[in-house]
Amino acid sequence: MAKASYHPVASTPQRKETLRHKLYVVIFETSTPAGAAFDILLLLAILVSVLAVVLESVPQLRHRYGDAFRASEYTFTSAFTLEYLLRLAVSPSPVAYATSFFGIVDAASILPTFVDLLVPGVTSMRVVRVLRLLRVFRVLHMSGFMSDADELMMAFWLARRKILLFLSLMLVLVTILGTLVYLVEDSRAGFTSIPTSIYWTIVTVSTVGYGDIAPQSVPGQLIASIMMVLGYAIIAVPVGLLGAEVSSRESVQREQQNRDQHVALTAGSDAAGCEFCRHCGNPLR
Amino acid sequence: MAKASYHPVASTPQRKETLRHKLYVVIFETSTPAGAAFDILLLLAILVSVLAVVLESVPQLRHRYGDAFRASEYTFTSAFTLEYLLRLAVSPSPVAYATSFFGIVDAASILPTFVDLLVPGVTSMRVVRVLRLLRVFRVLHMSGFMSDADELMMAFWLARRKILLFLSLMLVLVTILGTLVYLVEDSRAGFTSIPTSIYWTIVTVSTVGYGDIAPQSVPGQLIASIMMVLGYAIIAVPVGLLGAEVSSRESVQREQQNRDQHVALTAGSDAAGCEFCRHCGNPLR
Amino acid sequence: MAKASYHPVASTPQRKETLRHKLYVVIFETSTPAGAAFDILLLLAILVSVLAVVLESVPQLRHRYGDAFRASEYTFTSAFTLEYLLRLAVSPSPVAYATSFFGIVDAASILPTFVDLLVPGVTSMRVVRVLRLLRVFRVLHMSGFMSDADELMMAFWLARRKILLFLSLMLVLVTILGTLVYLVEDSRAGFTSIPTSIYWTIVTVSTVGYGDIAPQSVPGQLIASIMMVLGYAIIAVPVGLLGAEVSSRESVQREQQNRDQHVALTAGSDAAGCEFCRHCGNPLR
Amino acid sequence: MAKASYHPVASTPQRKETLRHKLYVVIFETSTPAGAAFDILLLLAILVSVLAVVLESVPQLRHRYGDAFRASEYTFTSAFTLEYLLRLAVSPSPVAYATSFFGIVDAASILPTFVDLLVPGVTSMRVVRVLRLLRVFRVLHMSGFMSDADELMMAFWLARRKILLFLSLMLVLVTILGTLVYLVEDSRAGFTSIPTSIYWTIVTVSTVGYGDIAPQSVPGQLIASIMMVLGYAIIAVPVGLLGAEVSSRESVQREQQNRDQHVALTAGSDAAGCEFCRHCGNPLR
Repeated sequence: MAKASYHPVASTPQRKETLRHKLYVVIFETSTPAGAAFDILLLLAILVSVLAVVLESVPQLRHRYGDAFRASEYTFTSAFTLEYLLRLAVSPSPVAYATSFFGIVDAASILPTFVDLLVPGVTSMRVVRVLRLLRVFRVLHMSGFMSDADELMMAFWLARRKILLFLSLMLVLVTILGTLVYLVEDSRAGFTSIPTSIYWTIVTVSTVGYGDIAPQSVPGQLIASIMMVLGYAIIAVPVGLLGAEVSSRESVQREQQNRDQHVALTAGSDAAGCEFCRHCGNPLR
Repeated sequence: MAKASYHPVASTPQRKETLRHKLYVVIFETSTPAGAAFDILLLLAILVSVLAVVLESVPQLRHRYGDAFRASEYTFTSAFTLEYLLRLAVSPSPVAYATSFFGIVDAASILPTFVDLLVPGVTSMRVVRVLRLLRVFRVLHMSGFMSDADELMMAFWLARRKILLFLSLMLVLVTILGTLVYLVEDSRAGFTSIPTSIYWTIVTVSTVGYGDIAPQSVPGQLIASIMMVLGYAIIAVPVGLLGAEVSSRESVQREQQNRDQHVALTAGSDAAGCEFCRHCGNPLR
Repeated sequence: MAKASYHPVASTPQRKETLRHKLYVVIFETSTPAGAAFDILLLLAILVSVLAVVLESVPQLRHRYGDAFRASEYTFTSAFTLEYLLRLAVSPSPVAYATSFFGIVDAASILPTFVDLLVPGVTSMRVVRVLRLLRVFRVLHMSGFMSDADELMMAFWLARRKILLFLSLMLVLVTILGTLVYLVEDSRAGFTSIPTSIYWTIVTVSTVGYGDIAPQSVPGQLIASIMMVLGYAIIAVPVGLLGAEVSSRESVQREQQNRDQHVALTAGSDAAGCEFCRHCGNPLR
Repeated sequence: MAKASYHPVASTPQRKETLRHKLYVVIFETSTPAGAAFDILLLLAILVSVLAVVLESVPQLRHRYGDAFRASEYTFTSAFTLEYLLRLAVSPSPVAYATSFFGIVDAASILPTFVDLLVPGVTSMRVVRVLRLLRVFRVLHMSGFMSDADELMMAFWLARRKILLFLSLMLVLVTILGTLVYLVEDSRAGFTSIPTSIYWTIVTVSTVGYGDIAPQSVPGQLIASIMMVLGYAIIAVPVGLLGAEVSSRESVQREQQNRDQHVALTAGSDAAGCEFCRHCGNPLR
């Protein structure tokens, strides 16, 4: 939608139309130098503002540079608000923009600061500003970087049923194994309930292994060992699936090219081995 | 067996036969709207009843909502018992159903509550109810979701000898390395016996790494380092095997299609492009 | 060598020859029912004797069942010694057998118990008995199970230069990163020397992550984060290499078959499309 | 550049030229026996000197063998300085050598010891000597070992956009998930700031799992579980990408060979099996 070409509405005056159209091209598109510069500026602003949010959460930094963080936040929010209003103003269909995915992300990235100003207590809203990072994808999407992502997504999409099935099987397995460990292990070793045991099973099967909970009894360690080998081997499934999907798509493309070349090739070799032209029946030599 | 079409026995009256057949289609099959609705209801009941079992194990929740958990358990057990009896009643061969895999799972998912009622002390039996989750596969099996699973299973089946060999080699390796670490490491670092050292070796080679036991001496850390690199590299084996198996099966299918197309293609291009037979020099048209 | 057929030496009497040859076939070969039974018995004896060694290391079990362990050990050692002497006696070339890989393994699996009897203090020699597990491969080797292992080995062999290079690169990387972490991290966090830091780096890059040593400072955690992402991504290298090698070998086999079928196929299609036999020049119809 | 053949400058005397050229071949090239011996000696010197730097950092060893470490360091630095000066002397273009990658690495591997002599306090400079390890690649580069590395590099290069995109997506994901965990988890469990939470998220998603920080609350453990499954599944992406890239490159090479063989095969079989030309019906012999 953001890429849709701009159709001027007949009733608006010509001069304002031109300015609005120019702004539209700069803000929504990336093909002109001004549009590319705007995108790079926006990307930097997003990254710096998110970095400020992240660093502000460190107690020492907040105490020392609290004012600087607040100042930068108000500056970025003002800039993003201006940008949001401009987008609304120059968009051929403001409602469609405001209700689109990126329209909602754009609004969500400025709202927390306004909420913070009006309702001072809700500090947890502040970190929602990190969602601004999602705006990065708008820039990436337009820069043509996403064709590779689309390929990845397509591989995921083609393997979606298998991935879903794999996750369901994992969930069933993890629930049953977690319950089994809850039965054989002591609650003093950290296995206080089935949900905790399932959490521990996921920690083990995924080979993360925090070690905050670890089996102490012999049967518990035996089950854990089986789980680890299982988890270690099971990783082969998603890898094999996705790898096969990616290989397969590339292979199909390659074979298509091959076939075209092959037809051309055999046509050539035919000509070399024939004594009569297969098109006209005249002797070739 | 559950999918076998129903053959009415001649001696039973026509009216009862129809009802029994209708129930059979609803309960055992999924092709009719009523059968699909029954499956979805069953799926929900299984998931909710397992969730109740899982949550009941949390001490705080058990103390607060103990009565609700007991009530839900009795309700679900009643419903599943009714379903089991119905399945026995409408199945053309009750004995075959009762001794089939899903027949045993169905019985196992209601038995623990009855045991619990008769022998109040055996609380460990309660968690066996989690095995109800296996019933989920009956529904998935019928919904045609399992064709992907069958493909996965086939890949596993074709690679079974290699996987078995891989696991045997791992077991031998892990036993020898675990014994080696037991020799060089102190029992104060947690390496109290060979089984414990083997357990730790599995934790390390599978890259889980709890950290409850960790080598303290220099030779111990050296052996551990070699193990980690080994474990890190060895994962390539099952992944490569399964990936190759999946790729290979898809490749064979693709090449079969290719060959068919190729034959058609060359035949077609020959006929289309030639004006004289390339075999005898006679005009084709 | 063990598989070499037996050629009787002319000077030995006929009767003894027959017995010795019969024993040779039973002990060294697996094709006869007696030979297969001997192999299965040997496999069981190896596994049980190793299990006894492993369980003997558990203090509680050693205190309670010490005599049983000692008895079983003497029984197994006697049996394996008898077997070793028999192998030496019936082998057509006892020296070649004694110096072969399995000959040395066979001797190594009985020696520790004799050393233990003569020099009572050397308890660490006892666990060397676990090396008996290597004898399992003799049985597997003969049972034809190893053709899959050979395939795996071949894939490893073909990728050996790449794997060696990969390991060298890892070693250089791990040494440099470990030194870097030693520079920025405090010795109180566990980074007391460069070898310890390198050990921690291997623990991190291989995604094992014990957590006995963990970075506390901000630059240390930053370097650790980069390492983890690196280690997480680097696993793709051995997997990709081995997977490609396995796929490639299977692909070559498949294409060879394909080509054979294709030649047969085109020959057939030719016959269908030709009006003159390409072998005799006579019209086909 | 190091491999460029040596062109003598006309004005220098013939005898000195010959010695300089001989030294150039020994030091910069590996094709002659003397050049190969020099390379192996250099490789050993690098490895031993790095080992000395690594071991010197262990407090116990430094206290006991401090003098030996200092002596070996001065010996190696003298040798490497001599080698560096020789390289400068015999190189046809000393400036080009000094500013090349390996020229800088060569200088960097001797500088720290000189800095250490002049400014005694800067002990942290000492460990920079580990960068000498990079000199290993010079030897490997010349020994032709790098053709496999080049292949790996090529696969990385072809997949660079996908890998970059993958890392960007990971960074965005990890920042958002880390912030989410910071919101729901207590600072007493270790989640004291967003950077720390992001660090923990990387530790979790990469399946390292130190366990120094671990979620304690139910929502925290739930988010952690999702992260682990995600991290466990996401590994499939780089593996699949690289595996597909490697497979694809090998496949293209194989198909090229295949095509060549196929053309030759059909041509050969045609000629060998036919007694009459299949194109004109005339006898071939």
